[in-house]
Amino acid sequence: MAQADNFFQLADETQGIPRELGPGVTTRVFPGDQAMLSIVTLEPHAAGAIHSHPEEQWGVMLEGSGIRTQGGEEIPVKKGDFWRSPGDVPHGLRAGPEGCRVLDVFAPPRAAYRVAGKGFATG
Amino acid sequence: MAQADNFFQLADETQGIPRELGPGVTTRVFPGDQAMLSIVTLEPHAAGAIHSHPEEQWGVMLEGSGIRTQGGEEIPVKKGDFWRSPGDVPHGLRAGPEGCRVLDVFAPPRAAYRVAGKGFATG
Repeated sequence: MAQADNFFQLADETQGIPRELGPGVTTRVFPGDQAMLSIVTLEPHAAGAIHSHPEEQWGVMLEGSGIRTQGGEEIPVKKGDFWRSPGDVPHGLRAGPEGCRVLDVFAPPRAAYRVAGKGFATG
Repeated sequence: MAQADNFFQLADETQGIPRELGPGVTTRVFPGDQAMLSIVTLEPHAAGAIHSHPEEQWGVMLEGSGIRTQGGEEIPVKKGDFWRSPGDVPHGLRAGPEGCRVLDVFAPPRAAYRVAGKGFATG
């Protein structure tokens, strides 16, 4: 594979493996060998269900704002904020009035997200 | 540790472990258990030395533009572009005329970057 095939663009909606995580919460997944990226879009006031998984997760707020719930704490997040969600810590995100877009990183990659599907995986 | 301690801001220069990777190339490192984030700033026309390491790396161009060298290919990158650099593939980045800022992700974390230091590690 040419190295050029490893290059993508955040705004290109045709790239990645599409997945509907919940009502108003969609993502596009980019699997790697040791990490996986997921570009999540939340409509205004949409909320991802609280869930957990053993993989470590990092999130970066690319656009908009919201409330991150993590380990029972509620933390307001805005553009440019980023955070680490340790493995097995329950977490979720509720979008603010303008919605938001988040870059999520999973390490190691989450097997369930390597193929198209629906919903949050907890495995 | 409170979950709030896992929250950061890309623009906050006081956060992370500072490291000078080369002339005009500085970073701030955020170590995790299974991944590590690094927010790299390149001055105009600064270039990171071509190097490689076994860990997988992803990069996201946050601001500015540059030329990514990867596996001998030269690929122009601009704001919003992101890419995967497989383990052991030689890579580097040369900033454009306005400089650039890149979010790098390493999985697994790179041991050499858990503490303050200088230069690119290849271990």
